Amino acid sequence: MGRAFSARLGANENAFGPSPQAIAAMQAAASDAWMYGDPENHDLRQALALHHGCSPDHIIVGEGIDGLLGYIVRLIIGAGDRVVTSAGAYPTFNYHVTGFGGEIVTVPYTSDYEDPERLIAKARQTGAKLIYIANPDNPMGTWHDANTIGRMVDAVPDGTLLLLDEAYIDLAPDGTAPRIDPEDPRVLRFRTFSKAHGLAGARVGYAIGNSAIISAFDRVRNHFGMSKIGQAGALAALNDQAWLAHIRNEVASARDRIVQIAAQNGLSSVPSATNFVAIDCGQDGDFARKVLAGLVQQGVFVRMPFVSPQDRCVRISAGRPSDLELFEQALPLTLDQAKTLWSGSTGAR
Amino acid sequence: MGRAFSARLGANENAFGPSPQAIAAMQAAASDAWMYGDPENHDLRQALALHHGCSPDHIIVGEGIDGLLGYIVRLIIGAGDRVVTSAGAYPTFNYHVTGFGGEIVTVPYTSDYEDPERLIAKARQTGAKLIYIANPDNPMGTWHDANTIGRMVDAVPDGTLLLLDEAYIDLAPDGTAPRIDPEDPRVLRFRTFSKAHGLAGARVGYAIGNSAIISAFDRVRNHFGMSKIGQAGALAALNDQAWLAHIRNEVASARDRIVQIAAQNGLSSVPSATNFVAIDCGQDGDFARKVLAGLVQQGVFVRMPFVSPQDRCVRISAGRPSDLELFEQALPLTLDQAKTLWSGSTGAR
Repeated sequence: MGRAFSARLGANENAFGPSPQAIAAMQAAASDAWMYGDPENHDLRQALALHHGCSPDHIIVGEGIDGLLGYIVRLIIGAGDRVVTSAGAYPTFNYHVTGFGGEIVTVPYTSDYEDPERLIAKARQTGAKLIYIANPDNPMGTWHDANTIGRMVDAVPDGTLLLLDEAYIDLAPDGTAPRIDPEDPRVLRFRTFSKAHGLAGARVGYAIGNSAIISAFDRVRNHFGMSKIGQAGALAALNDQAWLAHIRNEVASARDRIVQIAAQNGLSSVPSATNFVAIDCGQDGDFARKVLAGLVQQGVFVRMPFVSPQDRCVRISAGRPSDLELFEQALPLTLDQAKTLWSGSTGAR
Repeated sequence: MGRAFSARLGANENAFGPSPQAIAAMQAAASDAWMYGDPENHDLRQALALHHGCSPDHIIVGEGIDGLLGYIVRLIIGAGDRVVTSAGAYPTFNYHVTGFGGEIVTVPYTSDYEDPERLIAKARQTGAKLIYIANPDNPMGTWHDANTIGRMVDAVPDGTLLLLDEAYIDLAPDGTAPRIDPEDPRVLRFRTFSKAHGLAGARVGYAIGNSAIISAFDRVRNHFGMSKIGQAGALAALNDQAWLAHIRNEVASARDRIVQIAAQNGLSSVPSATNFVAIDCGQDGDFARKVLAGLVQQGVFVRMPFVSPQDRCVRISAGRPSDLELFEQALPLTLDQAKTLWSGSTGAR
């Protein structure tokens, strides 16, 4: 529409920003940007290993989780290989699978939760080489506790690798991340600095897993793909756990506020362990799409799930109070208009 | 060896640094790093299109030339497809070709120059899908004029795509870059902000070419792969052509200085249109490897060509006067030691 959005609440960015120490580190690194970043990401991997209680050999750093998902799909999936995911889960993962000739097999969400048992059963049934699950989930925000994910790992069939996308784990309640032996060859965990650490624009993700799987990335990755500035920012962000605690508080408050705004409008919200909340618009996907279009029209950028029945929701990122105020102002009118349009297009109800 | 190098003269980085405007733009963008970079690289592509007199549809931005080479190889090369390059040319390109199952076919350099006629003839003979040439060349620094490259483009066989790596073109004499219709489907040009623009650590490269080829990148690329900070730095660097002129002068002086240091030691240099100079150590590869090892031992990081007879040279980046002073100090002793070791290992000569 030729103008900037008034409120960016669609990409689950962390509007509370990165640690001031991370900003300072990136600003200092900008002056050194004439040098290539370390292709081995040595310092960051050392720090991550210390943080996670594993060895740097268990960690690969890459251009966001997106980049790392592309690499692991390339390493494992060939034409016709099956990959199991939830219908309506992360489309970028599916893009990589399709791009390397894999065949996506889906199972539905169960009551707005990804369903570990169904995913495992489908993988077993189809001989899938990969299973994808995000915990906490995107786009719904729901999550399983550590024990449930631990049981899922234990049930991974022989010949299958579980990709556990933990992009939002830093924002989830304690007890959400399972304890997993980093050498366990059944699961590869993905983490990012884009969400809780507020560094989406710096492109730093990493995976933790079996050292043989981790070293295989070196056969396909863009070795000089990491920005020196991003490396510096991620390292500083990791070292500022106090800022992370601050972000957790801010995000929790923002989630509560979104739930409250929904309730003011007679809508319920899906429980969330992320920096977004899926608001149940109370009708079908057509109605929610009209709500989304109305919000966008008013300059409030939000997104929504793609697949029914989750597409009855719109997904609101946990923005700053000023962002959520714009959302609060926009929602009632949007809902009124959507109801008019929706009943108009489908007849009286 | 557990210590930093005293002089980084091995990676052809631009030690004169990026434009101060680029540094300022990156420092400002660091505060906004909580936002994803624009996945379409809209502003940078607009500016590049203006700069090159083409449309943004002719430009794809990616994670350095390395990343873009990986994407184009993935798009075009399958198992057993042939790819022609010069023996001893860019190993990262070969890595991508091998990684996607392609078969590398090489032709030798001719007098330290990549040989357009031989490359074309070999492509014709083998039915190669890709030809790679760097102009100016790395690791030798030599170059062909625009007319020679233009004739090469005209000779590209049907069914073959020429990858013209112009990473160092901004440092070459006027008249090195050919005028090519951006819609010409026979050639894809690669440029980078890593060399003359001094932004190696920010990871920004781009390709210019036929709009159908360019749009194909969207089927495989990491859409959110670009750092917001890198985008900002590249845009500011492009807009500071005065700084680029300053860098050209600095690099030219540094090249002259390297040639002079070589001459002081009785060595000749290969002509260069890049920010490095290949010094002919005057003997074989074994000898040059001893020279390289001796320089590294003294804290001067340099590299060298891999393939005979080009491996008689060591490659020295066009560093700052202080870097080259360290090189100047290290070279005589290194040469003495190498001569001792070399004659010792191969008998009297």
